[in-house]
Formats: sequence, C-alpha cells, structure tokens
Amino acid sequence: MKGYAMLGIGKTGWIEKERPKCGPLDAICKPLALAPCTSDVHTVWAGAIGDRHDLILGHEGVGEVVEVGALVKDFKPGDKVLVPAITPDWNSVEAQAGFAQHSGGMLSGWKFSNIKDGVFGDFFHVNDADGNLALLPAGMDLATGCMLSDMVPTGMLGVEMADIHFGDKVCVVGIGPVGLMAVSGAAIRGASEIFAVGSRPTCVQVAKEFGATEIINYKNGDIVKQVLDLTGGKGVDRVVIAGGDNDTFDEAVRMVKPAGKISNVNYLGEGDFIKIPRAEWGVGMGHKQIIGGLMMGGRLRMEQYAALCKAKRINPGRMVTHTFKGFDKVEEALLMMKDKTPDLIKPVILL
Amino acid sequence: MKGYAMLGIGKTGWIEKERPKCGPLDAICKPLALAPCTSDVHTVWAGAIGDRHDLILGHEGVGEVVEVGALVKDFKPGDKVLVPAITPDWNSVEAQAGFAQHSGGMLSGWKFSNIKDGVFGDFFHVNDADGNLALLPAGMDLATGCMLSDMVPTGMLGVEMADIHFGDKVCVVGIGPVGLMAVSGAAIRGASEIFAVGSRPTCVQVAKEFGATEIINYKNGDIVKQVLDLTGGKGVDRVVIAGGDNDTFDEAVRMVKPAGKISNVNYLGEGDFIKIPRAEWGVGMGHKQIIGGLMMGGRLRMEQYAALCKAKRINPGRMVTHTFKGFDKVEEALLMMKDKTPDLIKPVILL
Amino acid sequence: MKGYAMLGIGKTGWIEKERPKCGPLDAICKPLALAPCTSDVHTVWAGAIGDRHDLILGHEGVGEVVEVGALVKDFKPGDKVLVPAITPDWNSVEAQAGFAQHSGGMLSGWKFSNIKDGVFGDFFHVNDADGNLALLPAGMDLATGCMLSDMVPTGMLGVEMADIHFGDKVCVVGIGPVGLMAVSGAAIRGASEIFAVGSRPTCVQVAKEFGATEIINYKNGDIVKQVLDLTGGKGVDRVVIAGGDNDTFDEAVRMVKPAGKISNVNYLGEGDFIKIPRAEWGVGMGHKQIIGGLMMGGRLRMEQYAALCKAKRINPGRMVTHTFKGFDKVEEALLMMKDKTPDLIKPVILL
Amino acid sequence: MKGYAMLGIGKTGWIEKERPKCGPLDAICKPLALAPCTSDVHTVWAGAIGDRHDLILGHEGVGEVVEVGALVKDFKPGDKVLVPAITPDWNSVEAQAGFAQHSGGMLSGWKFSNIKDGVFGDFFHVNDADGNLALLPAGMDLATGCMLSDMVPTGMLGVEMADIHFGDKVCVVGIGPVGLMAVSGAAIRGASEIFAVGSRPTCVQVAKEFGATEIINYKNGDIVKQVLDLTGGKGVDRVVIAGGDNDTFDEAVRMVKPAGKISNVNYLGEGDFIKIPRAEWGVGMGHKQIIGGLMMGGRLRMEQYAALCKAKRINPGRMVTHTFKGFDKVEEALLMMKDKTPDLIKPVILL
Repeated sequence: MKGYAMLGIGKTGWIEKERPKCGPLDAICKPLALAPCTSDVHTVWAGAIGDRHDLILGHEGVGEVVEVGALVKDFKPGDKVLVPAITPDWNSVEAQAGFAQHSGGMLSGWKFSNIKDGVFGDFFHVNDADGNLALLPAGMDLATGCMLSDMVPTGMLGVEMADIHFGDKVCVVGIGPVGLMAVSGAAIRGASEIFAVGSRPTCVQVAKEFGATEIINYKNGDIVKQVLDLTGGKGVDRVVIAGGDNDTFDEAVRMVKPAGKISNVNYLGEGDFIKIPRAEWGVGMGHKQIIGGLMMGGRLRMEQYAALCKAKRINPGRMVTHTFKGFDKVEEALLMMKDKTPDLIKPVILL
Repeated sequence: MKGYAMLGIGKTGWIEKERPKCGPLDAICKPLALAPCTSDVHTVWAGAIGDRHDLILGHEGVGEVVEVGALVKDFKPGDKVLVPAITPDWNSVEAQAGFAQHSGGMLSGWKFSNIKDGVFGDFFHVNDADGNLALLPAGMDLATGCMLSDMVPTGMLGVEMADIHFGDKVCVVGIGPVGLMAVSGAAIRGASEIFAVGSRPTCVQVAKEFGATEIINYKNGDIVKQVLDLTGGKGVDRVVIAGGDNDTFDEAVRMVKPAGKISNVNYLGEGDFIKIPRAEWGVGMGHKQIIGGLMMGGRLRMEQYAALCKAKRINPGRMVTHTFKGFDKVEEALLMMKDKTPDLIKPVILL
Repeated sequence: MKGYAMLGIGKTGWIEKERPKCGPLDAICKPLALAPCTSDVHTVWAGAIGDRHDLILGHEGVGEVVEVGALVKDFKPGDKVLVPAITPDWNSVEAQAGFAQHSGGMLSGWKFSNIKDGVFGDFFHVNDADGNLALLPAGMDLATGCMLSDMVPTGMLGVEMADIHFGDKVCVVGIGPVGLMAVSGAAIRGASEIFAVGSRPTCVQVAKEFGATEIINYKNGDIVKQVLDLTGGKGVDRVVIAGGDNDTFDEAVRMVKPAGKISNVNYLGEGDFIKIPRAEWGVGMGHKQIIGGLMMGGRLRMEQYAALCKAKRINPGRMVTHTFKGFDKVEEALLMMKDKTPDLIKPVILL
Repeated sequence: MKGYAMLGIGKTGWIEKERPKCGPLDAICKPLALAPCTSDVHTVWAGAIGDRHDLILGHEGVGEVVEVGALVKDFKPGDKVLVPAITPDWNSVEAQAGFAQHSGGMLSGWKFSNIKDGVFGDFFHVNDADGNLALLPAGMDLATGCMLSDMVPTGMLGVEMADIHFGDKVCVVGIGPVGLMAVSGAAIRGASEIFAVGSRPTCVQVAKEFGATEIINYKNGDIVKQVLDLTGGKGVDRVVIAGGDNDTFDEAVRMVKPAGKISNVNYLGEGDFIKIPRAEWGVGMGHKQIIGGLMMGGRLRMEQYAALCKAKRINPGRMVTHTFKGFDKVEEALLMMKDKTPDLIKPVILL
C-alpha cells in the first residue's frame, strides 16, 4: 500500500509499505478524511521525537473499517469511524489509574506516527478497536470528524485540567486550533470573561465567535500587563497554555491569581527548563498549580465530544479553513500547515 | 418601619417594627427591588419551618446600603448591592470546612425570613456585610439582580453538585425558576443533551431558550420511560432535581446510569422518607451518588454568577414574567407566587 | 474437572464440568488457596441474584497460572497470582469513565460465580489476565492473599468513597471482615476517632487492634444516640456502612453531620426502598451525600493494597480465624460462613 | 510590655512595646509556651520578607486568653488556646474560594511576625478569635500544642496537596520538623512505601518511627537514582518537598511517575526561577502536577489535627528535642534554630 511518510528528519515523501496486520482486538481502516497537525511538522522538520525512517505520518482522520479481529464486538467492516490520535492500552495499570495516555510509559498511548505508522496510508491499523474507535454519528460531516481526533480533545483537556468554576476569568494563550477549542471549551465550562492571546486575524475572528470576550495581542505590549489591567490588577483565575514556549509559564504564573491554576497542552519542543518565577509563585507557597497533559484518547471521550457537536454546544468544523480533495493532496496540506499562511487555521483532505 | 410579615401559619400582613440595629460588621439596607419565592409560600401557608409570628418575609432583593458598622471595609451608604438569600457566619468551623450554608448547624446560614426578619421591610439587616454583600455591577438591571439572591445560586448549585463532564446527558426535573437556571447552568457546564421535565408552556419556552434539547412532559407518560427511550435504554449521566417530592428520587435513580449522580436542590416539604429503590440503586453497589444541598451564600458566589450575567453566558432576567411598581405590591406578587398563574415564572417588585 | 457449585437456590454440591477454555487475553489458573464469602451464602441460600444451576461458586482466592492466551504479556504458567473478585472489561466505555466495575452494565464487572463459574474448581478462568491478575508478592502468605480478592478492596472502597479528611470522626457500621477492613482503612486514611458498630467479641477485638477508638454495641441502646453522645451531639463526619439493611441508612443520616458523607459497601439483599429520613436529611438541603459502590477490581488496586500489606500498614491476614487444608474442605468452610460461629471472622482453605 | 524582636535585617533583641489593643472580634493572649521556627531565622538573617524594624518575632505557641472583644462568642479570659501561625480573614472572597491563607492577597493570611507583631511578647494579638483559636484539648502537653501552630499543619498540607491514594509510594524531600510531619502524615494517609530524604541522625531516627520505610541520604549518591533504583525504574507516585531549593523541583520531576504529583511546602528563599526539566516533564504533556502552598490556618484545622494527636495517630511532641524554661530563653532557642545543632529537631520554651 501507499503512504505519505517521514523519510528522516526534514524529509518526507510517498512510500510503499505492506498493509498492516489485524490482531484479534484490532481494526484495519481506510481513511475517508485526513488532517495534518502541527505535531507532524514538529516530528519531521524539528525532529522533535527523534529520527524516524519511513514512518507513515498523520494521527487525525475519519476512517472506514475494512477488517476487524475476532474479539472485536462493536465494529464491523463498512462502519465509518472517528479515530483518536491517542490509542491507549486500556488494561494497563496506567489506564486503571486514570491516565491511559501514559499506558506503558510517559506519552506511550501516542502510537500513530510515533511508534507505529500513522493514518496517512491507504490503510491504517487501530489497536483495541472496541476501546479506541467510535462510530461517526449520523449527520456529522467528515471535516468535523477529523477535528475530533486531536484538536477537540486536546483543547478540551486544557479546559478540564484548568478546573474552571462558574464565573472564572480565564486566559487562553495561543489561538491556533487547539487554543480555539480551549476558548470554546472554557465558554461552555462556565467561564465568564475569556482573554484570548493571539494576533492572526482569522484566528481572532473565530476566537470571538467561540466565546472570547477580549483579544490580547502581543503587539500591544506585555501580555501580562494587559491581563492585569483587564482584571483590576488581580489576575485571572485560570490560564490555559496552548502556544508559546518555556517562557510562557513565566507569563502564566505572573498573570494568575494566588490559588489559580495553569493548564498546559502545548508540546514544548526545546530548551532545558520550564521557567517558573520564584517570587510570583509565592516563594513556593502561592497555591498556583501547574499541570500539563496529553489528551486521554479512546472511545468514550470521542463519543462525549461528538455529543457536544451534535447538541451544537461546540462547532469545531468552523476551524477548517481549507479543504482538499484526494489522497495525493496530503503533501500540499501538510506543507500548508508547516508554512502557516495567514488565513489558515486547519486544512482537511477528503478522500 | 413597615414590613410585610408572616403573622402566623397561613396569615400574612403589614406590620410595624423597629428598624434593625447595625453591629460592627453589619449593614442596614433599604430595598430597591424585591422578589417573592416559593419558599415564602411554603413558610407561610405550609408552615414548613414551623410557626413564626410577625416575622418579616422575603430573602430575594437588591438593596441600597444606608448604614454600615465600624469594621465594614468594602461598603458604604449609597452603595447599591446584591443580597444573597443565605448569609453565613464566615468564621465558623462549618465555613472553614467548605459548607458555610450550614454555619452554626444544618441550614443555619439561612437567616432571612427564618431566624431574623427578611428583606420585605423598609429596611433590612445584613450580617457580615463584607462577607455577604456584593456591589450591583454597572449596567445590571434590578430584576436580574433579584435573581442573583436565590434563583441563580440555587440552580447553579444543582449543576455544581451534579459534577457534569463534557458531553454528559443531563435530566433536570422541574422547570420553575430554579430548574430553569439549572438547565442554563448545565448548558454552560458542558452537558450535551439536556432533558427538561415540565409542562407549563412559558417555562417550556424558556427551557428551550436556555439550552434544553428535549422537553419531557408528565402528560406523555412515565418520565423514566421517556428518558430511557431517549437514551437507548442507558439512562442519563446526571439528574438535577428542582421540583417534585420524595418520590422523585425513585424516578431519578431509575433514569440515571450506574455511576451517575443525582443532585437535589428542591426543598422537600413533607413525608417521612425519601424513596431510594433498592434494586435500581444496584442493591447498594451501583455507584449512583445522591446529594442534596442548600446554596452557599455570601459575596464571592454572587460576584461569580454576576460575572456570568455580564459576559452574557446566562440571562436570568429572562425569567421575570411580571414586574410590579411600589412596595405595596409585595402582597400581590407573593399571592401570585402562591397561586402560580400559567404564564408566571417569576415576579419582581421595583421600589 | 471438579467444582463446588450452586445447584439451585438453597442447594450446593460437587459437580463435574469441562475445564474452561483460554482466550487470547485470558489465563487459566488452579487455586492455591480459597475463601468463601457471605456473598456466596446470599447467592445460594437467599437466591439474591436469582436462580443459577450448576454454577461453580467462589470469588476469593490465590491461584497459580497454568495457561495463558497468546496476547498475555505479563503472566506465564507457574506464576502465583492474586485474583480480584471483580474482573472488568477494561476497554469498555464504563471503565474509561472510571467505573470499570460496571463495565457492560451495572455490577457486570462481577463475573465469578455470577455470570461465569467461580474459583471453587480445579481450574478457573480469568478474563483479561494482564488487566486483572497481579503477582503474589514475595513473602506474602496465601491467607493474606485471599483477603486481597474482596475483603480488602471492598472495605477500602468504603473508606475511599467516604472521602475522609485528616482528623475526621468516622463511624463504621458492621464489623464483619469488610467492616474491619474499613476500620483499618479509616485509621490509615487520617481519621481521628473511629466508632465501630458491632457486638461479636472476636470482631470487637480485631476492630480495636485495627484502630477503632470506641465500640458501639446495639445491646447498649440506640446506636444513633450513642454516636451523638460521643460527639457532643454533633454527629460524625463520615459513616461507612458495611452491615445492616435498608434501615441502616436512616441511622446513618441521623448520626452524620450536615455536609457529612455516607458510604455504603453492604450488599442490600431485600426490601423495596432504602430509607432516607427527610427531615434529618435537611429537607433535601443538608449536604449529606450518599453513595454506595462495588469494588473496582483489576490489577492496579490489588497491587496497591498488596503494597500496604508489605509495608505493614494493614494486616488483613489477622482476620483469618479458621484455616482448612484440602479442596474438599470448601463445603465445610462455606457452611461455617453460612452459620457464622461466634468466633468466626473469615475461614481460608489451603490447597 | 516586653518582646523579642527583629530590630532590622540580621539584628534581634528585646524591646518594649505597647500592649496590643483588642478589637470587637479579637483576643489578647499571653504565651504559655513558644517555639522558634526556621522562618524566623529566614526573616531576620536572610531578610527574606524584606526589612522590618522592631517587629516582635514568633508565630508558634500556646497561649492563655486574657481579653476578648465584645463579639467573641467561644473564648473567654483564662482559656488555654492553640494558636495557628496563619490567621486569615475568614469573610474574604479568598477564604470563600477555599484559600483563606491568601485572604487579602498572596500569603496575606500570614500576619504574625510578618505584618503585625508575633507571639514572642508578654502579650500577643489574635485577629478573629472565634475563627482562629482553638481550645487546648484536655491532657495535651504544651510542647505538642506548639507543634500544632505550624509544623503539623504545614507538614500535613504537603500530604494533602499530594493527594495520596492507598498504596502510593511517596518521597518526602527534607526531614526537618515539617518534613517529619509529612512523613507521619503520608503514613496515615495511606502511603505504602515512604522514602525520606535526609541525613541528620536524630531526624532519621524520628523519620523511621513516623513511618519512613527507606532513608535516602545525599551522601550515598544522586537521590533521583536512589529513588528510581528502589522503584524498579518507575519512580514514585508522589513527592512532598519540605526542604532543598529551586533545584529540588528538577529532582522531584525526574523521580516522579507520569501523572504523579509534586507538592511543595518549602519556603523558597532565593533564586529567580524554579527549575522544571522540560523533557522529564513530558515535554509539557506528562501530567506531572506541581503545586506549592501555605498552610490554611484557622480553628477547624487545628481542631482536626489536635484530634489526630488525641487519637494517637500522630505524635508531633516526639520532635521536641530541647525544652527551655522561662521567657528569657527565647533568644537561646532561636539561635539554636539558626545554628541547627546536629541533635536538634525542634526546641520549645515553657513559660
């Protein structure tokens, strides 16, 4: 079969590979729609997870089941399915402890385009089909379905870890697609004011539609000062970090209230240490909690987030700014993600 | 001063009383707007909390501060203020344990029209002004302000205790003003489908505007069956009880999933025992959690819910179906609440 | 193979059955030690879960693996293993929601001697071996290992659901083996005073050793009054119910503080409704939370509880009052459990 | 009156001051026993909270009430009382949000020897007596009572924030008196193995008595490596930091499992940034939560911890290695705390 792969750091291309084999619990799917992710860009051009050779890329998509293992109960060939970026081992002790995404070791629930071939192939393999697939709901368009692989659950995780209370003021740093979903999630989680930090006009427009009450633009000066000015010097209750780098934590600590929470879903690509400012962190005693996590993965959460789409509480399809037709457009879409044109939020390829 | 009071069980009328005295931590306010509550009806005509003589009624309103004690720091005469129905003793051990509403004993944070005169007087007394008042936000209308005394915090408590996760299916039983706020709260807390149980057309209309996805009407048959039918036989994740009686818990247990949660904010006026069906409660092992509570009261929560109004996440003023002018209309508004005309949700009296 | 089975309601006996088959994820074990449970008694003589024919009984024991499926990674023939009474389907949506014990429906994680043959056979079948077995730690005696199947995790669940804070006063109702483990768990969860309700001398003795600070005996009068007297009329912070019946909830609600928690792990065998007294439950608003659950099951929790044994924080082996030798003694031990001799806490059969 | 004061950075001495005045909510106490704290040393010799002139030191002690304000209900002259180091404003919005220690601003619940005179005077002032004092329980010795001011609640907070589950492996870094109480707290919170990092023999001895299962000594090599070796390379579930500096967080992150928790109660005296290693923190996605806090303060928690002493779950008096007699010995005890003799854990002065 054919797949679009990382050939080595900085190099991509089409390759031929054997079709994956289906174990007793597994499913083999063919893609119906695909989306590239900034993580794919990091993986290839920054070598963020180390070198990989001829590893098929991609972890966002909607598929059709073509084969299932003998123990699979809930799916059969022909089913159209949502596919999560993270596909944990559900019987692991980590999953039993509530952290399936780290089953088998830190981040090891992340398998696609990391420790096995991703979804940018004629076929792709899904471990534990019953645990990791969900039926594409009737009436859901494929572009929305693609957003349920990673953008929705990652953005929502940022909101969930932030533990928002009714009426909280929340700052979301970064309004790429994950940050936009965090804005949307904060709005339906009970935040009052939502400050969205970003500058690209297309993203700003969607941030407002998704519930941002203020846009904080780096170009208008120090973002911490802007947030403090907007909150009478008190700071926000919660910060969700969906962009930036190690230094963003310095800003987050300085803009959050004592006893506030900082939730990170940004993949931190470089540098040795996250910066937590000692004094503003209350010399160790300010109760400013810091947590950073990976989306859980699996079937239940996709079903839950899909239910939010169906009930029109969220509209992730709104973020799809570019739609391509045909498998051969995967490369163009990926490069678009790499180069980030000003009007881009997220491209999708329909097959 | 003049006040509209409970004279004894089943009897109300205007009385003269001495103006309340202001302790060092307290404030004396005059009402700017008032609202009667079904609880006032229970207190007077059902004698629900026992007999009371010449006790001024009312625990919902917006006031203007006319006097403050020497230790009050944040309020001064002339301030327009939100007033919570529940005004706890914040330094009690119960408050330190996170349950201020039970400061000094079960439900003892409820003082207005229970253990001291309520707000239906020329003046009313607020214990611990700094802890229990909040400034009326600029631009907030008085009717909305009245809803922040009890209807908003009680409805939202129902949602908070239900511990809703993103995508949960929630059933709200009862769509009077508290139930309607629970519907609204569930929608901005991340519920997907919201089933609202009720039948009065005005309430049904507002329930839909507030986020209900289905209306369950008793007239169409057993409500448990309706809920099960709508959920493929699985039941809902959460139930918020904002109406009904002891038997409603039987229905709630039967319509909720294993490991689901049932949250009650309904004042249960009569009967000896709440009914929890043994078999459907998993013979004691079904993990169907049952909790019933009283709104917390105090300043912080009013400020947080007011922030939700300001950010237009909730619109409690929408529930005010009848507006009166003049203090002398308190009686008419209260009787309207007692008789519940078909088009009534909530009346407000502007002074 | 031979097994000791329920033949029908009220009837038990030895039967011959085919040895169970091992699926790709499963293990077949032979028992090294076994223990009967009061649940077995309920199942057979009360017909509590309905009629069953020729169903091998038993869900407590330590085994040796004799066969594993092709996908099993962490166990191999010859391994000595702890076996949980509850063996969930870990990739189910219920498990993903944190309630594996209800995987596939309420209580459906309970498979042994319920929906498949139990452990009282020459061999028994364990679904999902990697998810549901744990290695018997070096140095742990078999009797202690048997307690880890059900008595320890069920008692500890009672403590976990009760959500004890440092210094809380806790009442444990019932001091059979589950209640005793709840006493022990409460002591190492930070309770200060622990009131243990029971009367059998052997149990009373162990309750004191496990951390009970007071024994409440039904024979000395109303237990609620005794608890209130011991707490200056305030009541306890938490109640764990590990014995009694539907009426026990009435007592629990009356002895617990406002905002207290009631946690049930008792299997409620008969009656239509659990009794929750309306007035003492704060007319629906007293924040007295009620939860009843089934142990989670699976590998992680057995490993965690086994670690507590190894560190000598708990000593469940202390509850084994009677030890038998030989598979043929299963019947005698079960009947002893049925008849509850005065000096019995828990019997174990070594094979 | 006389008091032992900070005269300026690096300088201490006896001064004369006016006896503090008693507001309507307050109490004036005379000390019955006192204890110096490493924080006093930081304040004076490191100038950690900035310069202070003629500020009476001390925030640990047991007192006798000599005067109360008109609104004080639960205390009267002659009462012997426990006094918390942190005395919050309980009606503040921060307290209502559950973080009383930050009432009025980050760390502002800390008043003694910070924003007002401390307890090392002939008399000292307690704001909000009902909210912040607790009766010395009958039978409790004064030395134990002194430990309830700060050492017990700070150590226990470290444990509470760490959110220990039954069976967790916990590493406590630093075994001065706060770390020792964290060891003790972890043992009665359900930890299995407790690794205590420290080297002073007296502290090591008490750590073992309090429940440490292993002592990790810096002198035996890298502590992270030692912890990983003891856990089969997996790391611990929880880390409580009660000593060290900014770099200790680097060690903590590297020794904790994915989804583990790091809880800090150490006052971080210098340096610009806490060090969080990016890669070992899961490139931002490892779910390793970091929280650092100040003890809550107030009456309830002292009562709860005192109940643990009474029930003999904890024995903080064991840490008192040196006892002095007479107010004039305050200086000697403080200097001993500064110089930390090898056999010192905690000195107490009886008056």
